[in-house]
Amino acid sequence: MPLTPEQQAEIDRLRAESHPTRRATVPALEEILYEAIPVLDHGFVRVIDYMGDDGAVVQAARVSYGRGTKKVSEDRGLIQYLMRHRHSTPFEMCEIKYHVKLPIFVARQWIRHRTANVNEYSARYSILDNEFYLPAPAQLAAQSSNNRQGRGDVLSGEDAARVLDLLREDSERAYRGYAEMLNEDETGVPRDPERAGLARELARMNLSLNFYTQWYWKTDLHNLVNFLSLRADPHAQYEIRVYADAMIDTMRRWVPLTAEAFDQYRLGAAQLSASGLAVVRKLLKGEPVSQAESGLSKREWTELMETLGRPA
Amino acid sequence: MPLTPEQQAEIDRLRAESHPTRRATVPALEEILYEAIPVLDHGFVRVIDYMGDDGAVVQAARVSYGRGTKKVSEDRGLIQYLMRHRHSTPFEMCEIKYHVKLPIFVARQWIRHRTANVNEYSARYSILDNEFYLPAPAQLAAQSSNNRQGRGDVLSGEDAARVLDLLREDSERAYRGYAEMLNEDETGVPRDPERAGLARELARMNLSLNFYTQWYWKTDLHNLVNFLSLRADPHAQYEIRVYADAMIDTMRRWVPLTAEAFDQYRLGAAQLSASGLAVVRKLLKGEPVSQAESGLSKREWTELMETLGRPA
Amino acid sequence: MPLTPEQQAEIDRLRAESHPTRRATVPALEEILYEAIPVLDHGFVRVIDYMGDDGAVVQAARVSYGRGTKKVSEDRGLIQYLMRHRHSTPFEMCEIKYHVKLPIFVARQWIRHRTANVNEYSARYSILDNEFYLPAPAQLAAQSSNNRQGRGDVLSGEDAARVLDLLREDSERAYRGYAEMLNEDETGVPRDPERAGLARELARMNLSLNFYTQWYWKTDLHNLVNFLSLRADPHAQYEIRVYADAMIDTMRRWVPLTAEAFDQYRLGAAQLSASGLAVVRKLLKGEPVSQAESGLSKREWTELMETLGRPA
Amino acid sequence: MPLTPEQQAEIDRLRAESHPTRRATVPALEEILYEAIPVLDHGFVRVIDYMGDDGAVVQAARVSYGRGTKKVSEDRGLIQYLMRHRHSTPFEMCEIKYHVKLPIFVARQWIRHRTANVNEYSARYSILDNEFYLPAPAQLAAQSSNNRQGRGDVLSGEDAARVLDLLREDSERAYRGYAEMLNEDETGVPRDPERAGLARELARMNLSLNFYTQWYWKTDLHNLVNFLSLRADPHAQYEIRVYADAMIDTMRRWVPLTAEAFDQYRLGAAQLSASGLAVVRKLLKGEPVSQAESGLSKREWTELMETLGRPA
Repeated sequence: MPLTPEQQAEIDRLRAESHPTRRATVPALEEILYEAIPVLDHGFVRVIDYMGDDGAVVQAARVSYGRGTKKVSEDRGLIQYLMRHRHSTPFEMCEIKYHVKLPIFVARQWIRHRTANVNEYSARYSILDNEFYLPAPAQLAAQSSNNRQGRGDVLSGEDAARVLDLLREDSERAYRGYAEMLNEDETGVPRDPERAGLARELARMNLSLNFYTQWYWKTDLHNLVNFLSLRADPHAQYEIRVYADAMIDTMRRWVPLTAEAFDQYRLGAAQLSASGLAVVRKLLKGEPVSQAESGLSKREWTELMETLGRPA
Repeated sequence: MPLTPEQQAEIDRLRAESHPTRRATVPALEEILYEAIPVLDHGFVRVIDYMGDDGAVVQAARVSYGRGTKKVSEDRGLIQYLMRHRHSTPFEMCEIKYHVKLPIFVARQWIRHRTANVNEYSARYSILDNEFYLPAPAQLAAQSSNNRQGRGDVLSGEDAARVLDLLREDSERAYRGYAEMLNEDETGVPRDPERAGLARELARMNLSLNFYTQWYWKTDLHNLVNFLSLRADPHAQYEIRVYADAMIDTMRRWVPLTAEAFDQYRLGAAQLSASGLAVVRKLLKGEPVSQAESGLSKREWTELMETLGRPA
Repeated sequence: MPLTPEQQAEIDRLRAESHPTRRATVPALEEILYEAIPVLDHGFVRVIDYMGDDGAVVQAARVSYGRGTKKVSEDRGLIQYLMRHRHSTPFEMCEIKYHVKLPIFVARQWIRHRTANVNEYSARYSILDNEFYLPAPAQLAAQSSNNRQGRGDVLSGEDAARVLDLLREDSERAYRGYAEMLNEDETGVPRDPERAGLARELARMNLSLNFYTQWYWKTDLHNLVNFLSLRADPHAQYEIRVYADAMIDTMRRWVPLTAEAFDQYRLGAAQLSASGLAVVRKLLKGEPVSQAESGLSKREWTELMETLGRPA
Repeated sequence: MPLTPEQQAEIDRLRAESHPTRRATVPALEEILYEAIPVLDHGFVRVIDYMGDDGAVVQAARVSYGRGTKKVSEDRGLIQYLMRHRHSTPFEMCEIKYHVKLPIFVARQWIRHRTANVNEYSARYSILDNEFYLPAPAQLAAQSSNNRQGRGDVLSGEDAARVLDLLREDSERAYRGYAEMLNEDETGVPRDPERAGLARELARMNLSLNFYTQWYWKTDLHNLVNFLSLRADPHAQYEIRVYADAMIDTMRRWVPLTAEAFDQYRLGAAQLSASGLAVVRKLLKGEPVSQAESGLSKREWTELMETLGRPA
């Protein structure tokens, strides 16, 4: 349960408001504004503000005085052109702000995207809730044997149960230690009046990396596209990929033409190296070509054949 | 005249629109949304979009589920605290987008602020208008004799007239050369069908730095405050300062509490160096102190005395 | 013990090398290059590369063809002028690279400085060492009663012992759980061949925030000065302040003139708000002034009086 | 002639220096350090400092205590892997600093790369030299008829001569106006003591965009690669491409393994869109496919066929 009834009530209150504006609005995104989209066992993503729409991309590319949009087909064409040629600046003219609740180890990967604005809940200032991430059994994967930073087969039932027990016990114990060191309830009153509580900024260090934190995260559409390209990729860790997937859904509501271009020129696109391109040209001419002569490593050759839909 | 009737009509059309939104809105800013605020002889600043308000700063600082605002007095106190302690991240949660028309030499200073998003009108792609900046006579100042990057006295009437004539003639001639090299009218039809026109990306190099360009410029509130602190400063060149002044007015409409904190902790604030602080402490104790013993240079001493409202 | 003998040997090997270069060099910094400066119980800071010196700041400010430096007194004056007027770009022309070993909760604060370049040791890819931070008894402080994000009195011996025991036991247990889930030794061989090990990217979530990580961290001199201003400040958490203090020592070796300007216009400087400045002016004129009439809050008034060296 | 004898003498003096350092050095780059590589008619690029080498990329990727390099073949493989998978952070660990002299209209394109550090020669503070760019006849191209931001055929001899005359005359006249308004020689002495000179910050606006400026420009290897990918591309304007080409030569000296990966995965690489990839797969299976059915626009289809080395 990612939200308390009080939090849900605050969200409902916001959703009930409506104001007139002269700005561009996107009804499909307004529809889900402020709502928490559940991710993992206690996490969520909520869109809490946005600025601009597909038209704002077009408008900026044309530096126009009005909306800048013409026929939908022309706007689509322009947006595809911009995405294809990596003309990134018009996409920077749209902005979106999320409220995200996520495990700390996911937050540590996420924060590496430096071009966003972030306000994180402060554990120096406040007390963290007793909420930690436990993977679903289907996610308890063994270390991959051929990819040092990937997952292999899912653990057997017994091994999985053992891991889950261990994670749960250690997390519960970590929180008990945290609470005991703090020695205060949520209103700051000491639980044991006989002893002093440890400073919050110190006590937090007892919590493990699967505890949940939360932040406001704001970025422009260009950097969102970059973030999603990297984090919705199959090489990304599952626990951040599910956040990226939820955010792609919000992007489709917000800027459908840009999302279409994203599918075409990012998510579904393929990059061929100079040597990989030479291989493709030879294949198309019907010339024989082997991995050994191609200049490609075995791994690159295999990846190229997969990309081309051919047997390796 | 910064706008053509067609441009004004496009703006009027946008201003006539109204849409419902669940987002925070700022009526005082909506009032002037899209309107061109004239700056210099042909330039303008227009707010064309915004995201967030003072409440969004408060909301981010508290990482809250709802609006996050409490009583106005508490919000004001929090915003002042954040500005005073340079807690910049909550101010990054608000965003504003301007359309600006400005002389190229001003654009060259402005672009040095790297944290903004920019889409400039492309003179590789389009033809620039015949509009150039001529200073008002009151702005035709002589080189300062004691500040190598400043202005001194205003030129006498005769000297001023001579400068203005020279600027006007050279600008007109530069545009004539540009048009002749392009050899095309606004629709791309050759003026002289007997000869080829020079590529736009080359012809533009004949224009001088007082010609007007325009761009979309978007930034967050934290970086706007930094920009305005530097560019509304008396040391900034007059021609960029007038843009900063116009933008400060838009900031007062948009985020009045932040603007108040900006006056208090940026525009009206004073920085004392370690040695300058030692001087103030001595003065307050009634101890004698001289420039020679203070460790301050003559210029710093003079500036300190001015700051303190004392004779140097 | 922050370093193993093998690591120390690698460092010694690097320190034994010497190459000729046409670039500017700084002998005082070369003296400690690659050496690990111990911080906290297992952490360190090492300078592993640098580019430029005080002369490079001067050279950039003058856009010169040669070294750009003149007399030391002129260079000092120019550097002080640049720091005083926040002309930051010449300081951006120097760069320094550190290798830092630090607890994860410190890394989480540090990473918020987005203008640096970072490569962190990957716990998706590699196995973390069994090293965690335990505060020295003098650092085990109670929660501050008047500052929600600060420390109060040091805990009594008994309370401190209890906290330390709890931190140590929970950390040790967290690592045991981590190792058990991984089920592999440092060379990747399973400890228990009967069962599969959990993927590294998952197992790491059992570690607590006091475990050590390490990274390469590179920044320019302007952003280093900003980082140190904020993190060497008394309001910063002790555990990051000790890193900042160690880095200030390296800055003094590297760019002594810039470090001097840093003391004068950052570390030892004071910021007066508009209202605070009005109070100082009145005091200097001998006029009476009270907190109530000053427009300052009680906290600001107290801070101002402290700054001025007067009783509140 | 980009350099005066005094400037060349300053450079020679620097090149004669040699200091011992413990840092990584790159002899092939040291060889040309400080030397001006001529670009266009009066411009140049000079490497004036650098930090790191190919080994520093490897070292950062491994977060190692020593040099981090192993066998050359392993280092090459790792660097190719990093470039291929867009793991950009290790490349950010190397830094290079250039001194560049370039026409203002080129500087205006260049500055759009916001991730670099820049110090430009100040025309508020100093007087610009009488040096302006005149294209070589082979570069005087007509506007492209099918690409709004490109060049078409080279102008005929007569048309070219006319353009060159016009550019030269207008540039000379612009400088005469500038000098007359300034009314001072290089040492600040008035030419005509009877009248006041206009402030430098105003007079400069009379200069046209082909006048030369200069700056120090510093960036990390990752952002250099991005800059060169975009600016050495055939779609880039010729006048910036020649700078990029000169800089690629310096990159080959500095980091040969990274430069090789750059050729393979950037310069010589091809991006296939989702629809483009589907076309390639069909072609490889020997299935018929036409532009109309492919989902590609005509322009995209043509570009794809060119990439694949097939007739359109």
